Amino acid sequence: MSSPSLDELINALTCLPGVGQKSAQRMALHLLERDRGGGQRLAQGLLQALDRVGHCERCRNFSDTDICEICEDASRDESLLCVVESPADVIALESAHAYRGRYFVMLGKLSPLDGLGPEQLGLDRLESLLEEGKIKEIILATSATVEGDITANYIADLADNHEISSSRLARGIPVGGELEFVDSGTLSRAIAGRQQINPPD
Amino acid sequence: MSSPSLDELINALTCLPGVGQKSAQRMALHLLERDRGGGQRLAQGLLQALDRVGHCERCRNFSDTDICEICEDASRDESLLCVVESPADVIALESAHAYRGRYFVMLGKLSPLDGLGPEQLGLDRLESLLEEGKIKEIILATSATVEGDITANYIADLADNHEISSSRLARGIPVGGELEFVDSGTLSRAIAGRQQINPPD
Repeated sequence: MSSPSLDELINALTCLPGVGQKSAQRMALHLLERDRGGGQRLAQGLLQALDRVGHCERCRNFSDTDICEICEDASRDESLLCVVESPADVIALESAHAYRGRYFVMLGKLSPLDGLGPEQLGLDRLESLLEEGKIKEIILATSATVEGDITANYIADLADNHEISSSRLARGIPVGGELEFVDSGTLSRAIAGRQQINPPD
Repeated sequence: MSSPSLDELINALTCLPGVGQKSAQRMALHLLERDRGGGQRLAQGLLQALDRVGHCERCRNFSDTDICEICEDASRDESLLCVVESPADVIALESAHAYRGRYFVMLGKLSPLDGLGPEQLGLDRLESLLEEGKIKEIILATSATVEGDITANYIADLADNHEISSSRLARGIPVGGELEFVDSGTLSRAIAGRQQINPPD
């Protein structure tokens, strides 16, 4: 190859998830040929994020400050706490605009085989939040997997110890989902959790 | 969102080709959660490439130095010149290990509507290379499109003026290609360019 710096950039780009040698090459050539300004912004954005982004001391979500903007936001309902596995889940829930409480980010789920116990998920910190006495309900937004279920049950027990009610996200057919393409596990959950159209008074 | 620096990083990542908001978010969270070292290397790689990578004064390929490594390489056949449209084409030809001459990179193809004439493609510099008298054959590796054909013909005329022979890459069925899936344009070129198996002596 004609340029060692270009080779290094291509290699560095393969650290991005879903980017192999070929895409990395396309990205590097694109930036150098057509968007050097974008490349500069990307480099600055990376350095700034790596320097500034840490974890909120309260909810463990990514934050530039000790306490994140969501935890600081007085307009949010502090009696509701949604427990999620990762910052990506917070982004997804926030973009749905359907929740106005606070979050707790575990950065994982209970998985003893991977060395992820209650301590690694910050559940001691979660307990101290529960002890503050402001939280009235916990919404367990863990993923719909075995580990997710186990984690949710574990936290529901914690909440129960503090006499706080807990709930899980509803399971069923996704909005816009065609019945014939829905898997059988989801279908059986949807039947079990069916909701009456005109509930009797 | 909880972190402005994270938002900025996600936005900056969308400047990469083929990366939308959702992939950018996944990349940013991956780097921050699991590969901060990779993020640091990427930022450094970007800054270094943007700072150092320019164009070779001889062949116009990307290069860290005034004259690129391929043009400097004395073991390459200086009587052969392969004319390509972009640095990506050089990478592709180099990885085929089938060519040991030099290159000339036009950084585009003739396209008057886009304001790309002979001057923008550096064809004046190509002519001065031809005038040096070392080049005996030009291989026109332009793409198999109308603009690519026009560009190839234009350069073949230039070469003819300097009494240099020129050739184009063979067109036909790709290696591993199943006949039934080959398009009809390629098939008709493959028939027209058919090659005898046992050429008569």
